[in-house]
Amino acid sequence: MTSFARSIRVATRRRALVLVTREVEAVVRESGLTVGICNVFILHTSASLLITENADPDVHSDLEGFMSTLVEDGDRRFRHIAEGPDDMSAHIRSVLTATSITLPVRAGRLALGTWQGLYVWEHRQVPHQRVLEISVVG
Amino acid sequence: MTSFARSIRVATRRRALVLVTREVEAVVRESGLTVGICNVFILHTSASLLITENADPDVHSDLEGFMSTLVEDGDRRFRHIAEGPDDMSAHIRSVLTATSITLPVRAGRLALGTWQGLYVWEHRQVPHQRVLEISVVG
Amino acid sequence: MTSFARSIRVATRRRALVLVTREVEAVVRESGLTVGICNVFILHTSASLLITENADPDVHSDLEGFMSTLVEDGDRRFRHIAEGPDDMSAHIRSVLTATSITLPVRAGRLALGTWQGLYVWEHRQVPHQRVLEISVVG
Repeated sequence: MTSFARSIRVATRRRALVLVTREVEAVVRESGLTVGICNVFILHTSASLLITENADPDVHSDLEGFMSTLVEDGDRRFRHIAEGPDDMSAHIRSVLTATSITLPVRAGRLALGTWQGLYVWEHRQVPHQRVLEISVVG
Repeated sequence: MTSFARSIRVATRRRALVLVTREVEAVVRESGLTVGICNVFILHTSASLLITENADPDVHSDLEGFMSTLVEDGDRRFRHIAEGPDDMSAHIRSVLTATSITLPVRAGRLALGTWQGLYVWEHRQVPHQRVLEISVVG
Repeated sequence: MTSFARSIRVATRRRALVLVTREVEAVVRESGLTVGICNVFILHTSASLLITENADPDVHSDLEGFMSTLVEDGDRRFRHIAEGPDDMSAHIRSVLTATSITLPVRAGRLALGTWQGLYVWEHRQVPHQRVLEISVVG
């Protein structure tokens, strides 16, 4: 029985997707677990996690285009604007995506689909240090 | 190895966020687990779970303002209206947020970020009794 | 301690919800676990998982009606259109719902609410073979 924990840091540069599959896979390898699950949890409310296509970069720009129209920076209804026009929109984008994702571990590796990547989606316009808590259990 | 289960009840008073971090943390403490994961699952399809900022109440009212414009009560396209104008909108709001969230446990406590709270989001306009199934594994 | 893994295939016929509660429950039974969690992970980025009402089929058609207005097939802003007008919209619908859901296991069964069903939501307009990786841990 394995119950392994590690936190990793991800430096974001601007509002964008940052691929973290490899970093999470390294934690799974370090845990020594062969079959079970790996939970990834982001300790923030203005950046989030998602799984999406890892091949065509147009998917990422189309996702960003859709989301920034759905949730507009500087929406005049927002009252939570202390950190700027991308403050409240970042919280909403986080709620519409995921703060916690659990992945299958098989044969000591993450068992993602061929076209799946695990991403941190930075929702703020400026660089941040983001922390992920990773738990490997099985 | 720990595999601990508890269900808790949450009384909601109207459409609003209800903080449940403390109640879930009490279950983690009772389990005795030091390192692993805690899954929270809500047994309903018209209330949901989310993690968002726990400091500024404006975040909560801005979230509600955004969501109630995105998913309109009484939308005339809805056919599932047996329980009123907030019936189908509640189901959609539930699908757009989360029914299940897994949290990291470290040193016997939930390892949330400083500004993160775990909430039940009641999507119906009238009070309900909501049940959460909590699993602590590691 | 149990850490059991199985993958199952789900044949979808068109854009629609496909109920999979029973198939996942069979895996839980096979695992022999009595108390713990069951994670379901879909290995695709244009189909997703959701938990919603299992009683009134109007809930499903209202969900589809809402989602297909929110994320329009053939939106002229999309650049990722290689596989047709439902290609990019399928990815966005996947991001707005769930790729991974963890369910409580109690007394050897899934402990869902009375009105909850677990569904695969096929977001493409044509039939697909979808694979779910199921992990039972506790």
